[in-house]
Amino acid sequence: MLTLDKIYHARYVLSDAIRQTDIIHSAVLSSETGCELYLKPEVLQITGSFKIRGAYYKISQLTDEEKARGVIACSAGNHAQGVALASKRFGIRSIICMPDTAPISKVEATRSYGSEIVLVPGVYDDAHTEAERLRQEHGYTFIHPFDDECVIAGQGTIGLEILDEMPDVDAIIVPVGGGGLISGIAYAVKSLNPKIKIYGVESEAATSMMDSLITGKKVSVETMSATIADGIAVKETAQMTYDICRQYVDGVVSVSDDEIAASILALIEKQKMISEGAGAASLAAMMFDRIPELKGKKVCCVISGGNIDVTILSRIIYRGLLMSGRACTLTLAIGDRPGQLRDISGIVASCGGNITEVVHERAKTGMSINDCYVKIEVETRDQEHIDTIIKALKEKNIEVIY
Amino acid sequence: MLTLDKIYHARYVLSDAIRQTDIIHSAVLSSETGCELYLKPEVLQITGSFKIRGAYYKISQLTDEEKARGVIACSAGNHAQGVALASKRFGIRSIICMPDTAPISKVEATRSYGSEIVLVPGVYDDAHTEAERLRQEHGYTFIHPFDDECVIAGQGTIGLEILDEMPDVDAIIVPVGGGGLISGIAYAVKSLNPKIKIYGVESEAATSMMDSLITGKKVSVETMSATIADGIAVKETAQMTYDICRQYVDGVVSVSDDEIAASILALIEKQKMISEGAGAASLAAMMFDRIPELKGKKVCCVISGGNIDVTILSRIIYRGLLMSGRACTLTLAIGDRPGQLRDISGIVASCGGNITEVVHERAKTGMSINDCYVKIEVETRDQEHIDTIIKALKEKNIEVIY
Repeated sequence: MLTLDKIYHARYVLSDAIRQTDIIHSAVLSSETGCELYLKPEVLQITGSFKIRGAYYKISQLTDEEKARGVIACSAGNHAQGVALASKRFGIRSIICMPDTAPISKVEATRSYGSEIVLVPGVYDDAHTEAERLRQEHGYTFIHPFDDECVIAGQGTIGLEILDEMPDVDAIIVPVGGGGLISGIAYAVKSLNPKIKIYGVESEAATSMMDSLITGKKVSVETMSATIADGIAVKETAQMTYDICRQYVDGVVSVSDDEIAASILALIEKQKMISEGAGAASLAAMMFDRIPELKGKKVCCVISGGNIDVTILSRIIYRGLLMSGRACTLTLAIGDRPGQLRDISGIVASCGGNITEVVHERAKTGMSINDCYVKIEVETRDQEHIDTIIKALKEKNIEVIY
Repeated sequence: MLTLDKIYHARYVLSDAIRQTDIIHSAVLSSETGCELYLKPEVLQITGSFKIRGAYYKISQLTDEEKARGVIACSAGNHAQGVALASKRFGIRSIICMPDTAPISKVEATRSYGSEIVLVPGVYDDAHTEAERLRQEHGYTFIHPFDDECVIAGQGTIGLEILDEMPDVDAIIVPVGGGGLISGIAYAVKSLNPKIKIYGVESEAATSMMDSLITGKKVSVETMSATIADGIAVKETAQMTYDICRQYVDGVVSVSDDEIAASILALIEKQKMISEGAGAASLAAMMFDRIPELKGKKVCCVISGGNIDVTILSRIIYRGLLMSGRACTLTLAIGDRPGQLRDISGIVASCGGNITEVVHERAKTGMSINDCYVKIEVETRDQEHIDTIIKALKEKNIEVIY
C-alpha cells in the first residue's frame, strides 16, 4: 500500500542523493498562458530526469539478499539512467536491457554509470521480453518503471517539494506515461491538501490513461504512432497507477507533437532550458489552453526530463523557426541567364535577409527550356520580413513560385 | 569607492527582486575536465542573464530627482533587458538605444518590459553615440554596463552566493567583457577569503582585459572580428574594472569560438541548459584546459547568460553534430543509371544511417558525361558508424569522393 509515510520516508532517503530542484517562475510564459506559471525543472535533476527518485528509493528498500542478486531493468531512456546511477551508488550490479534502436547518447550515458547494457534487437517490447528471460534465468531483482509502490513514493517527493515552495499553488500539471509520476504527486498533494488540482497530460499518440479514465477501466491503446514524446508513449498503464489516478487526479488531457515542439522551443527561448518531448507536454497543455479553468490561477508545470537527442532538437528548432517566420524556403522561377543569382542575392541582402543555401533546378516538367528554378533558404526576422523580401523580388520581375 | 558593505547592501536590495540561482554540480563535466566542477547558472536568472543584478541595484540607488529624469542605456543584449526590467519595477521611464542589427528577439524582449527602444542604424558604437546625444539633450541618467561601482556591487552578489553554497570552493571562473562581473565577484570573494582563486575568460576575438593586465596598463584592442561571444566582445575595459582586476584577479585566459561552441553543446547535452557564447566561455576554459593548475580542485564556473538567438543555436548544434560524427555529408560518384539512388539508400539504411537530404549534381567539370555526383546528408551515431557506411558503399563499387 502506498502511504504518505512512505513518500516522506522516500524524501528522507533521497535527501542527500538527489537535487531538490528549484521551482522557477516564468513571467513570459505567465503572460502567454494567462495564469501565474511556475516550472518544476526536473531536467536539472541528476541523470536529467525525475526517474532517479523512484529508482533510488526502490533500490534503497531492497533486502541485502535482493541487492546481492543484482537488479535488472528495461528502458530506452530515463529509467535506465536512474536505475544505473542508483545501483552504482549502492555498489550493486545492474543489467539494463535497451532496444538497439535507442539513441547512442542514452546507451552511453547509462553505460557510463557502470551498468551492463544488453542491446536487444527490436523495440521496447523486445527488450522487455529479454529482461524478463534474464531475470528468470539469473534471479535478478526486476525494477519496474512505474508499477511499484516504492517507485511511485519516490516520484511523489516532487509533490512534497512543490508544496514546500508553493503552499498556495492552485494546480499541478504532470506528464503521464505509465502514471508513476502523477500517482506519486497526486497521492502526496491530495493527502495534504485536497483542494489543489492535479492534471495529467498525455501525448495524442498514446492516451492509455485518459482512455482508461474515460471508459472506467484500465485499457490498452491499440496503435501508437511515432511521437517526439517517446518518454510517455506507454501502451498500457498499471492497475496500481490507474487506481490512484482514478481516485486523486482531476483530469487527463492530450497534446499533439506540434504543440509539444512549440513548447520545447518556448522553454529554450524563454527559460534557457532543454526539455525532451515528454517533459514539455505539461507546458504544452497550458500554452495550448487544454485546461481553460486554470486562467488566472497559480499553476506549476512539472518539466519531467531533458534527455532529448540533439539531432531531434536541431530539427525541432528548425521547425520552430519556420513556424515563426525566422527561416523560409523560397522557390523562384528565373530566366537561365548570367547574373540572375547576383540579382536575387542583392535583393535579399538589401532587405536584410541572409541566404544560407541555394539549389538550382533546371529540368522540371512544365518549365520552358530556357527557364530555371532556384530554391533559396533565407534566415529572416518574422513573417512580415519574409513578405517584404517576396515583394521586393516580385518588383524586380522575379517570379516567386512558393 | 567599491566596498564589501556596498556588495552586502546590494544583496539586501536584490533579495526580493532577483532569483538566487541554485549552484549545480556536474558529474559528467567533472570527469571530463578532471576537476570537481560546479556551475552557477545565471542563464536561469530573470531576464536570462546576471545583468539585472547590477542594473537593478544601480537604479535603486538613484536619487528621486535622477529617477524622475528617466534613465538611458545602450546595449544590444543583456544590459538592455536588465535596465528595462529594473526601470519597470521602479516605475520609471527608460530609453534603450540598440543597434538596428540587434536580433529582433532581444529588441522585442527589451520592449516587452516597457522600455522605449531607439533603433540606431549601425553597430554598438553608433548606438552609444546616440545614447550620449539623447542624454545631453534630455538630461536622462545614463546607466553604464560596467564602469560604475553600484553596477559592480550588484554583480558582486554572485560572489557572496557562491561562498554561501560552496565555502570550500578553490576557484571561480568568470567570463570577462568590460570586467564588471569579475570585478564584483573578485572583490567580494577576495575580501572574505583571499585564498580562493579568481580567473577570467575572454574571447580570442576581444582580449582587452588580458592585454591590459599583460602590458600593465589599460589598452584598447585594435581589431575585433565577429565572435559568437558577442556579449563579452568589448574593445576597452574601464579604468575602475582594470584596477580591481589587477589587484584581485589571478589570471585571464582566452578561448576560441570553436571551443565556446563545443561548450555550448556540452551544456545542452549534459546539463540541459542553454548558454549564450559569452556565458559558456568560463566552461570552455576548463574543457580546453586553459588553467591546468586547477586539476582536482573544486571549481565553480559562472555561466553568465543564455540569451542566444535560436538561429545561431541551430547552427552551433549542427556544427557540434558534424564535429562528433553524428551527422555527415558524403559526395558519391555514380553512373547516371536508374536504381542508383535506391542502391545507395538501401546500403545506408542497412547500416542504420538516416538520409536527411539528397542533392544530384550532373554537370561538374572533370566528370564523364554519363557520371553523376550525388551528395547525401546522413544522421549517424559516431565516426565509427560513418566509416562503416563508407566501407559498405565502397564494397558495392560506389565511389566516395569525400
